[in-house]
Amino acid sequence: MRESLTALLDPEATSRGAWHVRVASGVAALIGIAAASATGVAADRTALLVVVLVALLFAVAYAARVWVAGDRTAWARSPRGLVHLAAALPALALLANLARPGTAAVGFFVLPWALELTVLVPGLGLIPRVVRNERSALITVGALFAALLFIAATLAHLLEGARQPAAFGTIPHALWWAMVTLTTTGYGDVVPATLPGRLLGGGLMLAGYAVLALLAGILASGFSEEVRRTEFARVWGLITKVPLFVDVEALALCDIVSRLRVRTHPLGAVVLRRGTAPEAMYFVVAGEVEVRGSGAPVRLGEGTFFGEIALLERRPRSADIVAVRPCTLLVLDAAEFYRIAQQHPRLLTAVESESRRRQDSRL
Amino acid sequence: MRESLTALLDPEATSRGAWHVRVASGVAALIGIAAASATGVAADRTALLVVVLVALLFAVAYAARVWVAGDRTAWARSPRGLVHLAAALPALALLANLARPGTAAVGFFVLPWALELTVLVPGLGLIPRVVRNERSALITVGALFAALLFIAATLAHLLEGARQPAAFGTIPHALWWAMVTLTTTGYGDVVPATLPGRLLGGGLMLAGYAVLALLAGILASGFSEEVRRTEFARVWGLITKVPLFVDVEALALCDIVSRLRVRTHPLGAVVLRRGTAPEAMYFVVAGEVEVRGSGAPVRLGEGTFFGEIALLERRPRSADIVAVRPCTLLVLDAAEFYRIAQQHPRLLTAVESESRRRQDSRL
Amino acid sequence: MRESLTALLDPEATSRGAWHVRVASGVAALIGIAAASATGVAADRTALLVVVLVALLFAVAYAARVWVAGDRTAWARSPRGLVHLAAALPALALLANLARPGTAAVGFFVLPWALELTVLVPGLGLIPRVVRNERSALITVGALFAALLFIAATLAHLLEGARQPAAFGTIPHALWWAMVTLTTTGYGDVVPATLPGRLLGGGLMLAGYAVLALLAGILASGFSEEVRRTEFARVWGLITKVPLFVDVEALALCDIVSRLRVRTHPLGAVVLRRGTAPEAMYFVVAGEVEVRGSGAPVRLGEGTFFGEIALLERRPRSADIVAVRPCTLLVLDAAEFYRIAQQHPRLLTAVESESRRRQDSRL
Amino acid sequence: MRESLTALLDPEATSRGAWHVRVASGVAALIGIAAASATGVAADRTALLVVVLVALLFAVAYAARVWVAGDRTAWARSPRGLVHLAAALPALALLANLARPGTAAVGFFVLPWALELTVLVPGLGLIPRVVRNERSALITVGALFAALLFIAATLAHLLEGARQPAAFGTIPHALWWAMVTLTTTGYGDVVPATLPGRLLGGGLMLAGYAVLALLAGILASGFSEEVRRTEFARVWGLITKVPLFVDVEALALCDIVSRLRVRTHPLGAVVLRRGTAPEAMYFVVAGEVEVRGSGAPVRLGEGTFFGEIALLERRPRSADIVAVRPCTLLVLDAAEFYRIAQQHPRLLTAVESESRRRQDSRL
Repeated sequence: MRESLTALLDPEATSRGAWHVRVASGVAALIGIAAASATGVAADRTALLVVVLVALLFAVAYAARVWVAGDRTAWARSPRGLVHLAAALPALALLANLARPGTAAVGFFVLPWALELTVLVPGLGLIPRVVRNERSALITVGALFAALLFIAATLAHLLEGARQPAAFGTIPHALWWAMVTLTTTGYGDVVPATLPGRLLGGGLMLAGYAVLALLAGILASGFSEEVRRTEFARVWGLITKVPLFVDVEALALCDIVSRLRVRTHPLGAVVLRRGTAPEAMYFVVAGEVEVRGSGAPVRLGEGTFFGEIALLERRPRSADIVAVRPCTLLVLDAAEFYRIAQQHPRLLTAVESESRRRQDSRL
Repeated sequence: MRESLTALLDPEATSRGAWHVRVASGVAALIGIAAASATGVAADRTALLVVVLVALLFAVAYAARVWVAGDRTAWARSPRGLVHLAAALPALALLANLARPGTAAVGFFVLPWALELTVLVPGLGLIPRVVRNERSALITVGALFAALLFIAATLAHLLEGARQPAAFGTIPHALWWAMVTLTTTGYGDVVPATLPGRLLGGGLMLAGYAVLALLAGILASGFSEEVRRTEFARVWGLITKVPLFVDVEALALCDIVSRLRVRTHPLGAVVLRRGTAPEAMYFVVAGEVEVRGSGAPVRLGEGTFFGEIALLERRPRSADIVAVRPCTLLVLDAAEFYRIAQQHPRLLTAVESESRRRQDSRL
Repeated sequence: MRESLTALLDPEATSRGAWHVRVASGVAALIGIAAASATGVAADRTALLVVVLVALLFAVAYAARVWVAGDRTAWARSPRGLVHLAAALPALALLANLARPGTAAVGFFVLPWALELTVLVPGLGLIPRVVRNERSALITVGALFAALLFIAATLAHLLEGARQPAAFGTIPHALWWAMVTLTTTGYGDVVPATLPGRLLGGGLMLAGYAVLALLAGILASGFSEEVRRTEFARVWGLITKVPLFVDVEALALCDIVSRLRVRTHPLGAVVLRRGTAPEAMYFVVAGEVEVRGSGAPVRLGEGTFFGEIALLERRPRSADIVAVRPCTLLVLDAAEFYRIAQQHPRLLTAVESESRRRQDSRL
Repeated sequence: MRESLTALLDPEATSRGAWHVRVASGVAALIGIAAASATGVAADRTALLVVVLVALLFAVAYAARVWVAGDRTAWARSPRGLVHLAAALPALALLANLARPGTAAVGFFVLPWALELTVLVPGLGLIPRVVRNERSALITVGALFAALLFIAATLAHLLEGARQPAAFGTIPHALWWAMVTLTTTGYGDVVPATLPGRLLGGGLMLAGYAVLALLAGILASGFSEEVRRTEFARVWGLITKVPLFVDVEALALCDIVSRLRVRTHPLGAVVLRRGTAPEAMYFVVAGEVEVRGSGAPVRLGEGTFFGEIALLERRPRSADIVAVRPCTLLVLDAAEFYRIAQQHPRLLTAVESESRRRQDSRL
């Protein structure tokens, strides 16, 4: 039982069960937040009951997560473990306090449950890695942002302070306007009224746009680079399931791995449609597909490939391919297929002979 | 007749007739929306008549689309078929209701007509493909967004709830402010008033900018990658019309295809101007151009190429090239031309001999 | 005189005189706009006089531009010619109307003068080329934007029309809110008040962000690609001034050209500073620099190169390099220098022998 | 003493002490700004005392910076020197004025202190270099922005001037609205009320988004290119500390350098964790790490490398690697490792033999 529970609670697992567990946890967190919020408005007994139930659920879930963890101390001290602990603690507070529930206390329970949402998503581990990789660029842009903010607030205080003392009377007050303007949020609750103030505001909008564009560029390129690195590691792990690549030496394999993409298809999905232009070939690393062409349907399981005929013979697809079990496929785009075929002719020969063997056996 | 109608109604066709049909459908949808909107204000008989006419038009168009569809059941169940059906249904509702038209009923007709706008545009099929390809990255960013939203709303409720109960009294209320701030829309209808609330707001603007920058980066790169893939398939289909490339083996051809761009020119457009710097050579895959140089004008039709002389001899263009019929051309940039010439010397020889043959025959 | 005027008025010229002419025209346009605006407020005689003077200036400038144009009819019909004509016309209107100047008439003069600003900038020709290149992607995104706009306005009208009839009573009214929200401008003059309306608004902000991100991605990548193409043509024209490259065959040259960048330095600028890390080598295509090392200063003019020694010997710069006349240089980054040296060893040999010759002659 | 002070005050130094000096200067500037701001509200003697102390601190710091500068005149005239001078001057003003401090005078002190924030951050030198590199593209976009601004303001004045004379009565007034709309800030203090005005506003939002997207694209790509160039120079300087690369000729080395990334790890950081998938190999250029595998721990110092075994043998990490002193490492991603191994087989052989030697010696 512990093993199946481990699989269900693994935050990076992609199985259907683990997905259901994560969705259920997220929904429970949202219901708990809503109920705790409702107890804040009126002393509602039903809402309080829901809060207690959700709190108990998270306490039990925390115990289960500790139980299945490999190194329990390390897990309990990791960021993920601390968030789960924070989500479990309200249960204790409630038990200690159940006789006379103070509404204010209930209000504070919801924050750890909102944090729960962040740790339920696979892939969120990317974000801290991106931040660490791009640290020095982010510090540069952050410092530029802070300096602009303080310079603008100081100038605004000097230019507008006399006319609008409530909004610009001190630099801390002017900072609020500078922040709202620099991010181009523009609430409009505070607006410069003098000509120099408006010139400053216009310059600040432009400067803010430029700085935030730098931030966007750094984060977007850092994210896509980290995704590429993660995808490489993922394909590297999956490619061992394709016999075709077993004999390829590590150096050439690396070149191929960096050109494959992972795609998953649910049961019944049509992967290829007869008559369409060929744009890729596919390798099955999990699940099973069925070839529905002119002859009897053929099933292809783990380790096989398909879609190579239309690429080799440069003509439209001759069959539908349907996923008869949930599938994980490696996709090789047409352009990349030809490029690899040029650079690794032995691989092309292997694909061609296997392709011919399958066609012959079907006759 | 059915064939020409098929061509006119094909949503991906690029002919002039199909374009007119699409524009007319879009204009009819906009007129119908405006008229239905007008009947909502006053019981206007003229506007109602227009609504009835547009409704009938879409009903007839639906019948025609079903008639020309290859596999009618499949088409009727496709997203595109369902949108067209939704646009056709108001006609039935109107016929059933014409004696006493309820204005509220009319109001609801306009929504399917607004949806019609989405299916009239070729290329919109790209969007769902991009979303499917980038699914896991989009889920990560979406979850980050949701978590930020709920954490910010919870904190704002705790920090500002007592001071502004109408805007921050419950977490669902505070979510509206968090959403308006996180997307940097900044209506300004709800604004934090306390210092901690403003710090939270400032942080939220920055966080929102960062998350939306990630979203922008993922969508923009996914879109451009999908456009590249579509362009590859399109050039791959068109290149067979150029005899020069018939003997090139598939592997080398792929390399060339990925460097060509498709451009269309209307009748009378000047493709090249005499005296300008050479920046590309061109292959004609549809239509006809006229070379207007020092000698008698020469016409070049499908399968020919031009613009190579200036590249080979490194000097400005010696003639105007004008489209005497609407043209589809494949464009090869100067830098790519030289790169391909280096890697495929036999192709360069073929271009040079054909170029010399054409110049000799003109003398 | 006509020749020097041609050089001064050439909109793409980079000479100091042409630059002054363009700046003066822009300043005149701004002064004219301000003066015409002032006459709109009060019947100010001085302002009117300024308007008349600016109008006459633009009329004279138009005559001069027509005079120097190569093909006058073609120029007069080009977009640039039409804008200059529009800027010249107010003079005629003023002369016809000078006795009784109607203020409304004066107000309209300023628009062509604002348009003048667009045609004074070299490089603005890029924008229409980018739009033409990315036409199909822009149409897709534009249609998506329009469809979102109309769907959102229709839904908002249905959801909020009863509660806020002034803002959402008709679909055209609701369109204003949809536009302000979809672009995340968020004036806040119209804000949804119901829960479904707010959910719609939140979704619209996100959708708007996604669509505008696509637009941004398309424009930014299209612009950078067009800049790259323009830069290639520019370097291609300049590289003929460097004797080192004269014997390089076109195919190899192309590879080199695509790796060079053009940089201009004003008189007295320090191009290189002694003791800094070597990050590039430089080719002089216009102007003159002075090498201020340990020996007597040496001057290098058009066609020479410098900065190669530190790259070849992997050590810091041994001299300052100062521009003794305004310079145009081609810059080759260190990483590109080594890459080219690997691929074109004969070029490396030529650089090394010329470098040694210059060092020897200095002893 | 002067040497250690030089190291502490070097604005690009990465040592812990220099970092502390910079953080302390930034905090002092923020405290000074807050205190000066407080004296603006009330004649607060404590705040004034803090202002005096901070002013003295910056005056002393300026003297120290001048003392340690290599070329004092050049430093004093550099932008950085001028900012430090401006931050030091308030001390003199205060000394001259201490008897009767005018609050207005105090208000102006804070601006140079806000500027101090900009010069404390290493890496900010990138920004002016990016602006210089992308100058012509930035001028084009800036001119487009200015032209849009003036055309929109002129049109808004004509369309809305009669209805809202306070906001659109003159073109300078209308410019404020145009700026707020073009940057999509959208304060909402001025909003068009007529239909043509709203159409103009909608178009302006879209145009603004497009122009600012161009600006963002130019800045982001220029910034990332400059970062790449800086990183190349930095790795180039560090790589000489790895004996493995000493015999590699400059041309091949350049290829390797452009694929390495610099990463720093604080004392005690876990660089690699046993059991994880191999995604990179590492070169130690400063500091020391400890290999904690199955045998006795081994320490690796400057010039060594680790992490190659798992890449060569394609299996998970067999040991933890922990930084036992603060480390600077060069990181080579798995994909790049295999690519380099393919292109430079002699380097691969050297890595393999050193790796085997180390494993043997451990037995």
